[in-house]
Amino acid sequence: MQRSLKVADRAKVSPFEVMNILNRVAQLRAEGRNIISLCAGEPGDGAPSAVSQRAARIHTAGTALTYTPALGIRELRIAIAEHYKRWYNIEVSPKNVAVTTGSSGAFLLMFLSAFNAGDKVALARPGYPAYANILRTLGIEVVELAAGQESRYQPTVELLEAAWQKHGALDGLMLASPANPTGTMVSGDELALLTNWCKDRGVRLISDEIYHGIDYPEPGTATRRSVSAWELDADTIVISSFSKYWGMTGWRLGWALVPNDMLPTVDALAGNVALCPPAPAQYAALAAFTEASYAEAEARVAEFARTRAAVLDSIDRLGWGESAPADGAFYLYADLGEKLGSHANAAAYCAALLEIEGVAIVPGDDFDRVNGHSHVRLSFAAGYQAVTEAIERIVRFQDKS
Amino acid sequence: MQRSLKVADRAKVSPFEVMNILNRVAQLRAEGRNIISLCAGEPGDGAPSAVSQRAARIHTAGTALTYTPALGIRELRIAIAEHYKRWYNIEVSPKNVAVTTGSSGAFLLMFLSAFNAGDKVALARPGYPAYANILRTLGIEVVELAAGQESRYQPTVELLEAAWQKHGALDGLMLASPANPTGTMVSGDELALLTNWCKDRGVRLISDEIYHGIDYPEPGTATRRSVSAWELDADTIVISSFSKYWGMTGWRLGWALVPNDMLPTVDALAGNVALCPPAPAQYAALAAFTEASYAEAEARVAEFARTRAAVLDSIDRLGWGESAPADGAFYLYADLGEKLGSHANAAAYCAALLEIEGVAIVPGDDFDRVNGHSHVRLSFAAGYQAVTEAIERIVRFQDKS
Repeated sequence: MQRSLKVADRAKVSPFEVMNILNRVAQLRAEGRNIISLCAGEPGDGAPSAVSQRAARIHTAGTALTYTPALGIRELRIAIAEHYKRWYNIEVSPKNVAVTTGSSGAFLLMFLSAFNAGDKVALARPGYPAYANILRTLGIEVVELAAGQESRYQPTVELLEAAWQKHGALDGLMLASPANPTGTMVSGDELALLTNWCKDRGVRLISDEIYHGIDYPEPGTATRRSVSAWELDADTIVISSFSKYWGMTGWRLGWALVPNDMLPTVDALAGNVALCPPAPAQYAALAAFTEASYAEAEARVAEFARTRAAVLDSIDRLGWGESAPADGAFYLYADLGEKLGSHANAAAYCAALLEIEGVAIVPGDDFDRVNGHSHVRLSFAAGYQAVTEAIERIVRFQDKS
Repeated sequence: MQRSLKVADRAKVSPFEVMNILNRVAQLRAEGRNIISLCAGEPGDGAPSAVSQRAARIHTAGTALTYTPALGIRELRIAIAEHYKRWYNIEVSPKNVAVTTGSSGAFLLMFLSAFNAGDKVALARPGYPAYANILRTLGIEVVELAAGQESRYQPTVELLEAAWQKHGALDGLMLASPANPTGTMVSGDELALLTNWCKDRGVRLISDEIYHGIDYPEPGTATRRSVSAWELDADTIVISSFSKYWGMTGWRLGWALVPNDMLPTVDALAGNVALCPPAPAQYAALAAFTEASYAEAEARVAEFARTRAAVLDSIDRLGWGESAPADGAFYLYADLGEKLGSHANAAAYCAALLEIEGVAIVPGDDFDRVNGHSHVRLSFAAGYQAVTEAIERIVRFQDKS
């Protein structure tokens, strides 16, 4: 009898609702419809011009771009370490900087290096779906913390204690601040509570800081609020990226700050798993740390802030229910509340909005399989004009529904 | 009592001997020594000029390089499918082409999609160490097939049957032709025996074809010999890359041909694991499929052939023991035989050769933990001048030993 070929079971990852929306956006645009997409979690302007120019020079010269060291070229590891001095006033050794193929490459390498199959990692729900999907794919157990408005949708010591009681000892905590889809941040004090709790219990904290730099001063202050976990504890893992602040999503370049005890493991695994991060991007990214590039990135953050203000000013007109405070990043995550109207769920609301008014936003299911069915995520990375026009269309859509 | 932080056990991957050699090469060069390194598994010339020029144009224009679809841009998937028509005269649908972040990204995605933890995958020893390291890291059991001269260091049905008897049912077979470190290839007939055997027993065959195009006609023929597993069976997984034939190692761009039954799984996992392959490389790589780029790559293959001929002509002078027939790629893998002399093992021989004559080659331990200690791998990708000079130095070193 012929034994049939298998496909892996562990790959039973939930398909993303957003894919249906994006496919329909492409169809409608192909038909000539004027569609505003507020789906993308990425700035549309691309890399700072100094980075593009440096890349152009490298390729014009026909530089042979061969393998680099598995953890990245030394100059870039140094430049990233210096960035921590600039932004957080902390000393980071370049040996603790692992350059990776986007933050995705960092998540994979760090999860593999920190956890065994069967280990338990806690994370907030709602959250970025790939965390849980990668963890489960690697056989790591995911413990969801039901985080709501009262904790700014972030993990707390209380939620962690309850999870420990219910599920037994935890091995890791995945934290994201600013978070996707909510944009919420933890304060320095809250972060200290979490790092201390983790340290006391032997729980490895992984801090996703890819949206750092895209944060908005609290009303009445001019303070940048993003706090890095490494300001508090160098036994945590920090993950970051050139994708968001520097707008280099497609380049696939990120990094991790790796605690000393994990260095031998990361060193042994990195080359096997990925060989090295993309060489052209590594050389070009050196230009991200110039004054010109920081200035260009800051100008974009100012534009995000202007768009965010317009979104927040429109919240009453939108008439949605509870929404997360968008402390950073470029998302508004909200319960549709009574504006769900006669739609069966947020996915149906989003599908109808796209057909009738040509505006694409994402239903919450991808971020929260329990409560996301009444929520939507609106990305304001698309820019002021697109976002304010989209809001008019959404209000009109709801008036008609 | 404080529970201490853990580091993953599964990450106990063997460190590579080659790293010691490469570190010493860097030290000696920094001291001003003239070192010839025949360690690298990569061509040093870089991408075809049309690819570099296209990349330069993209960056000069400041194109915003945002996320692409997880399996790559459509134009590139089409171009890769057409490449299979050109080289192998087979029809491949672009939907079966998954563009990946180098072949490393393809191995990871395919292993995750094809196998569960605890599954058994057979592979030839000696072989490329990352196959076994990635598989073990993912909790997949590796069954080594002791492949020697009599099967050109390749798996055979006999070796597979014996492994099945000893270890129980196998779930996968990893095949590489041309192989690293041996350069040996399986013929079309041998490949047919393997694909048929795998099909009959429900064993997923994964064919690493990254060295295709770098192969040498048998004496007296002008035939290109590389046969793709997809010429025989579209239920196999084919993995390939822009790294070797097109010399784009550092760009991190590869692909897989994905069997239909695996498409939903690959589709669900790809975006979670890697988001997308590097966008600049994807757009630039479209120029790899132009006549000019093929011609440039063929000129390099001709140069590899000239260097290989010089290496083969020197085998008697080198006086080494059994060596693998270098059918393709750019490696000579040989037992040092009596030329090991008074050195404790190949690692000691290589260390002494580097100190005394400034030639770096790799000991076999990384490729074969059982028998590799008396073997070396010499890469002739470094070019005719470097390789012929290195051979003179090796002969001199051995005469003095």
